[in-house]
Amino acid sequence: MANADTVTGLQLRSTAKKEGILEISLATVATPEPKPEEVIVRIEASPINPSDQGLLFAGADLSTAKVSGTAEQPVVTASIPPAALRAVTGRVDQSLPVGNEGAGVVVRAGTSAAAQALLGKTVAIVGGGMYAQYRCIKAVACLVLPAGTTPAEGAAWFVNPLTALGMVATMRAEGHKALVHTAGASNLGQMLNKICLKDDVALVNIVRKAEHVALLKGLGATHVCNSSAPSFTDDLTEALVATGATVAFDAVGGGKLAGQILTAMEAALNRTAKEYSRYGSTTHKQVYIYGGLDRGPTEFTRTFGTAWGIGGWLLTPFLQRIGFEAAQKLRERVAAEIKTTFASTYTKEVSLAEALKLEEIAVYARQATGEKYLIAPNKGLR
Amino acid sequence: MANADTVTGLQLRSTAKKEGILEISLATVATPEPKPEEVIVRIEASPINPSDQGLLFAGADLSTAKVSGTAEQPVVTASIPPAALRAVTGRVDQSLPVGNEGAGVVVRAGTSAAAQALLGKTVAIVGGGMYAQYRCIKAVACLVLPAGTTPAEGAAWFVNPLTALGMVATMRAEGHKALVHTAGASNLGQMLNKICLKDDVALVNIVRKAEHVALLKGLGATHVCNSSAPSFTDDLTEALVATGATVAFDAVGGGKLAGQILTAMEAALNRTAKEYSRYGSTTHKQVYIYGGLDRGPTEFTRTFGTAWGIGGWLLTPFLQRIGFEAAQKLRERVAAEIKTTFASTYTKEVSLAEALKLEEIAVYARQATGEKYLIAPNKGLR
Repeated sequence: MANADTVTGLQLRSTAKKEGILEISLATVATPEPKPEEVIVRIEASPINPSDQGLLFAGADLSTAKVSGTAEQPVVTASIPPAALRAVTGRVDQSLPVGNEGAGVVVRAGTSAAAQALLGKTVAIVGGGMYAQYRCIKAVACLVLPAGTTPAEGAAWFVNPLTALGMVATMRAEGHKALVHTAGASNLGQMLNKICLKDDVALVNIVRKAEHVALLKGLGATHVCNSSAPSFTDDLTEALVATGATVAFDAVGGGKLAGQILTAMEAALNRTAKEYSRYGSTTHKQVYIYGGLDRGPTEFTRTFGTAWGIGGWLLTPFLQRIGFEAAQKLRERVAAEIKTTFASTYTKEVSLAEALKLEEIAVYARQATGEKYLIAPNKGLR
Repeated sequence: MANADTVTGLQLRSTAKKEGILEISLATVATPEPKPEEVIVRIEASPINPSDQGLLFAGADLSTAKVSGTAEQPVVTASIPPAALRAVTGRVDQSLPVGNEGAGVVVRAGTSAAAQALLGKTVAIVGGGMYAQYRCIKAVACLVLPAGTTPAEGAAWFVNPLTALGMVATMRAEGHKALVHTAGASNLGQMLNKICLKDDVALVNIVRKAEHVALLKGLGATHVCNSSAPSFTDDLTEALVATGATVAFDAVGGGKLAGQILTAMEAALNRTAKEYSRYGSTTHKQVYIYGGLDRGPTEFTRTFGTAWGIGGWLLTPFLQRIGFEAAQKLRERVAAEIKTTFASTYTKEVSLAEALKLEEIAVYARQATGEKYLIAPNKGLR
């Protein structure tokens, strides 16, 4: 810390300018003095999740990206196509901090006992603005990581683990007995596979590459369907017959996959139907779109009766629905299993400045399976 | 009745043959002797609803329709395209009766007091097989029409009235304060308009023709948006801002309309948003597809945040969800307002044989607004 009174550090900022230009820069900001119930966390690790990239890139065309500024404080600019700019009207010309979740060490604390008790502790936190050297946050929002857990191990404690747990909880709450997950081989997909194996929940994984079938099978998955295979529809239908899955969580969003899943669910249900029902199966079939790996239009032909739904799914309203205590139990499970069920793996660890290199953006912006980045905001700066 | 012991009459039958041929014919069937709790209704009137036509035509290409047989017992055949045939696999080679609802006179009754009390009464009934001269049904399922109501006035007592009432009830049950309806000028749309005016519920009607705007405005509708007008998106957004509608019931199904509605709802909600939310409005926006005027693919671009859903909506599970007593209240309201709120109008009344004329099929199969047919199964036969 350069100053004994004020904690100052770099913070990544993203601005969508009204002229249709994205600007990503590193601002030097003074972290607010902690109030009695607050602490200042020195962020040591924060993952770049797909869910961070909407805010980070504002839909810009990254093939137009340029870098300027200095090596320590680079500035990335890129064009935002008109349609994408319209979609982010509400944030135009605002300089926004980025980064949903992270972990680090409490370096300063407010006067309350709860805050003081955290001094020196390694904690996991969530709430935006994590791509920064320091983050002021309420003490009650900090999850103290188990002894021996590094910030890098705890950084991705919230978004993927809670989303995966939320999928299983949603499946149960809505009366389904098994679930389908697309992007099965992703970090989140692998976590979900581990949860389902541990909790004895039947899971149908959908992946897009043969090597991801092998990867998941190697991790103990029973049902893995490759959407690129000619036999995909049949494979999926058989897996749905075997598991009885009638809810799917889809990271892709665009294209025909959501409709294909509903059609296969209907076919699986009709296998056991005893009598013709002109309105289709009476069992409700649901696809929740929780990601946008394909940002193009979603298209489906309604050949799956009338008992179906497609909708958005987001972690925050799910946690609000289940309430604080139920959510806290999920958080505690994540902390307890952070090195096993909820372990994440990363391709690369980068500093804030390195995260703005065009060659790094080109890799992590693809959101490809097995190419996940971790930002270490204080790397090389202390 | 030709026979003192057995009630025999014509019954319309639809068969989807495995060779890909639809066959519609009039079978001469003996109505079962009523059990103690049953009655036999001589059907005097039964509407041809869009919801009947799926079962009637089995997705056949009606441009290939041919007629054979006799004038009294014609047989219509048409080709069923392979995709449509796959969609009706469960009914292949079964000769199925058609006709959801109707009204007529109780001509024979079982020995129970409830059944005997209905003898000679004009009743409205539902449950399939109404395109027939006679229908055996449980006495408890008969709705006695108010004195002075003709079978033609009571024939469409169930599908449209209960669907329209179900939309308003669903809107309320799911916490929305106003609703959108496509096919606003249809028989059902006009009914819904009357219900909403009477019950003081804000309704946004979507129609496809300028003359339907005039028609609904003439019936007192406040918000009527023409989806063919260049200003449609703006018009719809303004109507959504004015009403706060966040649920829509869509009769069209295919194309981009469902997505356009969600996009306009999101735009309307964001008008009043105070702060940028990268996940969009937190208010849930819902489109229920209850019809298939456009059987083509449904396509939407996800520019309406994450709090949204598109799904099927069907009357029967709605009635099951609300339970018998609540459903009975809705039925009683329909009976009480059958000549006002729930009055239907028809282009033409046809006999069973006339309903199988190619020139009549060509008209009613279009399901165009203002071209609704009523079948009078005993017309010219008594």
